[in-house]
Amino acid sequence: MTADAQRFMRVAVDAMGGDFAPTAIVEGAMLAARERVGVTLVGVRADIERELQVFSDRGVLDVGVLDANDVVAMEEAPSTVLRRKRKASVRVAAEAVAGGQAAALFSAGHTGATVLAAHAAFGMLQGAERPALATPIPTVTGTAVLLDAGANVECRPTHLVRFAVMGTVFARVALGMEAPRVALLSIGEEETKGNDLIRDAHQLLKSAPLRFVGNLEARDLFTGQADVIVCDGFTGNIALR
Amino acid sequence: MTADAQRFMRVAVDAMGGDFAPTAIVEGAMLAARERVGVTLVGVRADIERELQVFSDRGVLDVGVLDANDVVAMEEAPSTVLRRKRKASVRVAAEAVAGGQAAALFSAGHTGATVLAAHAAFGMLQGAERPALATPIPTVTGTAVLLDAGANVECRPTHLVRFAVMGTVFARVALGMEAPRVALLSIGEEETKGNDLIRDAHQLLKSAPLRFVGNLEARDLFTGQADVIVCDGFTGNIALR
Repeated sequence: MTADAQRFMRVAVDAMGGDFAPTAIVEGAMLAARERVGVTLVGVRADIERELQVFSDRGVLDVGVLDANDVVAMEEAPSTVLRRKRKASVRVAAEAVAGGQAAALFSAGHTGATVLAAHAAFGMLQGAERPALATPIPTVTGTAVLLDAGANVECRPTHLVRFAVMGTVFARVALGMEAPRVALLSIGEEETKGNDLIRDAHQLLKSAPLRFVGNLEARDLFTGQADVIVCDGFTGNIALR
Repeated sequence: MTADAQRFMRVAVDAMGGDFAPTAIVEGAMLAARERVGVTLVGVRADIERELQVFSDRGVLDVGVLDANDVVAMEEAPSTVLRRKRKASVRVAAEAVAGGQAAALFSAGHTGATVLAAHAAFGMLQGAERPALATPIPTVTGTAVLLDAGANVECRPTHLVRFAVMGTVFARVALGMEAPRVALLSIGEEETKGNDLIRDAHQLLKSAPLRFVGNLEARDLFTGQADVIVCDGFTGNIALR
């Protein structure tokens, strides 16, 4: 590999979101930059620069700063933030991705605000009905991805099928799996088990062009029997906690 | 206490239901009988007697046998069992309770069949809309009870309120709590968090004559913040696994 091939993508980082921000975020960004990730820290410039000056190797690393001066509190409603605070850090970071200045967005802040900011800035891929939160989970044989982990508390059966497609793509691209096995989180392995949502989704998944392996019980989440585990956001949140 | 006060209630035990039945069931019944619980073993008499003869103290303990000759397989639909097999052990055991020959029913067999047999034999208390499975769970401060753990996969908000009432009575009578704290299992503490069912149930519970302490997240199930934890049967099953 050449040095160039080892240079990774550029990430727009919401420096103001999350516990102990911006201190912890800037420290994490420096660690990533040392691993050859390009980082653009987005937030209140003076606050970010104060944190950056602690690091003596700052000058030799690819770490930039993008100004975003609106401050968002954890308890503010995400929709309000998006409507009223045009210079909220997560919003400016998402717009940097949409404008091609970065390839990915990272925020440790409010999950709902991050999803909404990304949705507003990038929109969705064709065919995707709703964004979902995909969470990689460790299994005895490697890694699986569970979605939705909390973005959509009410789902229709077709939503779960879309999540299965999205999870399959994620498992292929991000986890390097050739033919990810898709399972539906339920309360029994038989296709008659579950609530109306799960039973209907089971029938749709059986005829979808996916490697559907059936229902998976919550106690088997970490057994490695499936690579993509699909559920509504309410159930996903309960299962992961 | 007199010897008489130490004598506990009589229990009708489904000797044929569960793993390693009737061997394991009969052994457990003998252990209970040594603790002064009266036991009526219900099932195929020859099979039960064969197991009983292993125990030399059988003759001095209060262990009876009630004949029930229909054999039920684990995979049989509970409704079929109830309709066609009048002498299924769980059914005869439930009828023994309904007829006053025992005060309680125990079965380690098919949960759905047990609930249906009990429902058919005893009916429900006035005001109860649906039976629920109540599961005692250990907490850092003692014991809580979670319901529904799987009997009702689709619920309306009023069902959850009834479960809260039933759980409160259980916590008072079986766990000896004076004023059990009731919580609603959800994905966030705020009353706006959750799906439609949870949000509507939250509003009903706030005005119910119960000690409602709000939503509880799945990660806090075992913290002792609530004594009665209410949810639909699908969610309860996912949370407990």
